[in-house]
Amino acid sequence: MTRSLTILGATGSIGRSTADVVLAHRDEFRVEAVVGGRNALALAEVARRLGARFAALADEGGAATLQQALSGTGIESGAGQSAVLEAVEREADIILAAISGTAGLVPTYAALKPGRRIALANKESLVCAGDAFMTDARRLNVEIMPVDSEHNALEHALAAGLNRDVEKAVITASGGPFRTWSRQRISSASAKEASAHPVWSMGSKINIDSATLMNKGLELIEAHHLFGLGAERLDVLVHPEAIVHGLVQWTDGAVTAGLALPDMKVPIANALRGDRRLRMELPRLDLAAIGRLSFERPDDDRFPCLALAKAALRAGGAIPTVLNAANEIAVEAYMAGSIGFYDIPETVERVCSTFSGRQISTPATVAEALAIDREARQTACRLIPAPVEAVQVR
Amino acid sequence: MTRSLTILGATGSIGRSTADVVLAHRDEFRVEAVVGGRNALALAEVARRLGARFAALADEGGAATLQQALSGTGIESGAGQSAVLEAVEREADIILAAISGTAGLVPTYAALKPGRRIALANKESLVCAGDAFMTDARRLNVEIMPVDSEHNALEHALAAGLNRDVEKAVITASGGPFRTWSRQRISSASAKEASAHPVWSMGSKINIDSATLMNKGLELIEAHHLFGLGAERLDVLVHPEAIVHGLVQWTDGAVTAGLALPDMKVPIANALRGDRRLRMELPRLDLAAIGRLSFERPDDDRFPCLALAKAALRAGGAIPTVLNAANEIAVEAYMAGSIGFYDIPETVERVCSTFSGRQISTPATVAEALAIDREARQTACRLIPAPVEAVQVR
Repeated sequence: MTRSLTILGATGSIGRSTADVVLAHRDEFRVEAVVGGRNALALAEVARRLGARFAALADEGGAATLQQALSGTGIESGAGQSAVLEAVEREADIILAAISGTAGLVPTYAALKPGRRIALANKESLVCAGDAFMTDARRLNVEIMPVDSEHNALEHALAAGLNRDVEKAVITASGGPFRTWSRQRISSASAKEASAHPVWSMGSKINIDSATLMNKGLELIEAHHLFGLGAERLDVLVHPEAIVHGLVQWTDGAVTAGLALPDMKVPIANALRGDRRLRMELPRLDLAAIGRLSFERPDDDRFPCLALAKAALRAGGAIPTVLNAANEIAVEAYMAGSIGFYDIPETVERVCSTFSGRQISTPATVAEALAIDREARQTACRLIPAPVEAVQVR
Repeated sequence: MTRSLTILGATGSIGRSTADVVLAHRDEFRVEAVVGGRNALALAEVARRLGARFAALADEGGAATLQQALSGTGIESGAGQSAVLEAVEREADIILAAISGTAGLVPTYAALKPGRRIALANKESLVCAGDAFMTDARRLNVEIMPVDSEHNALEHALAAGLNRDVEKAVITASGGPFRTWSRQRISSASAKEASAHPVWSMGSKINIDSATLMNKGLELIEAHHLFGLGAERLDVLVHPEAIVHGLVQWTDGAVTAGLALPDMKVPIANALRGDRRLRMELPRLDLAAIGRLSFERPDDDRFPCLALAKAALRAGGAIPTVLNAANEIAVEAYMAGSIGFYDIPETVERVCSTFSGRQISTPATVAEALAIDREARQTACRLIPAPVEAVQVR
């Protein structure tokens, strides 16, 4: 049976991989809409390749370019936030939500429609507004399928048992480019050095988050919302080969693990699956050829962001939202060369401290989450020592 | 809810581990009967520890010793094959079937009663008579739970998807004591050297099977029957640390794996679980402490038994039964010092060849399987070069 699909973030890395998966299974999907950010030509191209009915560009300025690029194709188009929301509103069985950052929050939240599936790649929906998002998803009977390798692996592993028999769910971290560096050497590392991810090619902000391990911290918060597991049942393991993505330790001592070659098409295919999995013509995992898998405990001393994220998860309330916002500002400042590597956790910790005394309750709506996000960003900006041109408060 | 349990092979290694699991969950189980082979005193002791209602010894000669050892306890006892079958016939929700060798075939088969669960540790039920056994299990609605680490891991991993989406199910082998030895060195290895298993402490016959990798071959045949997977979807990977016990490769490229520290109590607890898993106070798997897991392809040249078992699985019919019988005789002869290490696969191959031309159909009953088993043993004995005192045709 053909299922209709809308892709939010169609021109990004996950969107492009999704297009590959869909094109390999033309008979299984009909693409309703594709949504992009600023690149009108790239969006037009993916809309044509996928035979989408509608293409929406977030950037209003690109409207004419998009329309022109699609002229004669019969593909409708629009630009601006209203066009993005129109794309989300159009009927689709599955929404692949891969707009990155807080920009993805509103459209992903708007995608919650009764009976739909959301293949979720937008971290912020869970990190900033996880309680609100998951509560509404359950109320509306929306199936949330994680697209991240780690959460997809956990979703697999958790299928081997019951949530109440889970002792611990563990996601792995490649360890980032500074895995083997001393704290001193890391402290003077440049943003360029921090961006060299050993396994995945991703955007630069997420590369910095991988270098600080904040990425894993945010993933723990996501795992908490996705799987209903508290901080005490969540952990991180460093695994440089990035083959084992997630593990579940059961109360009887058995462990179930999700593995795959590091290729986003695997979790995407999984999140898009119907009654059956999608058969993917990809190289298969060959453990004998790989030979060895190695594992280490993460080092909280060299990578304090992980402990900060865990503390935020334990604190709950608005603190995870604050943590994420402060981190975004600190990472932007680091990328702009305004602060050093360890000023990232320093800034995050200070902003979280500022908010933690105020007992702000858990954001119950996206609007509340965005208000906290904005305030936390402003607080973070005030803490950044030098004036930062590159830092934008959205 | 308390469930009643009968343990076949209560004095063996798996039986003793089962007793430990049961004693740690006294409120969950009531032990109906325990069955042992020849050691009357050990059986009496386990019967007392577990508060069993009935103890049966296979060896008739031990009747008086058993009765005396249990006098005053209120535990009934009996000896001989009829007592063993009486134990099996008594009402029990779960039968843990851990009598090793073909001696376990008849009682395990007799344990198939409507609605029961069989926690299966007797290889021969599947290897010699797998079609008959599984057909009857399905017909009688008997739940078969594998107790082997490898099959238990596969059972976990397979829970993450549908059988039709399985591309390959892989069980791991520690590689045995000769993993790093040259073929020449192996060819003159003594039975004592072959018995030194690097990970598990088991009986000596099964240790030799681990050294030849026939053990994994037999496990592939078991996996075939347990999970309905053909030879083309089954494989073996060498993994010296024996932490990953089984892996399932799905059609979308994802892999689900079952891991545990090598302790039989883990799969036993799993096979005995009720609605929930049994919480086990065992050391937890700590991959960071272990550090590395390594994997190799098995070497068919140095370990030809694995290829023989795969060929037997592909051939089907009576050949797996023949393979197993010939292997038992060859291993006994090797342990008696009558033949060399590579005479084991040589003998097995020759016996299988003798039978393969005859197109004997798949044994449809245990009696048929035992008849083929007996004939194959006789054929094997005739092929053993020197007269072998130690080899018994049962």
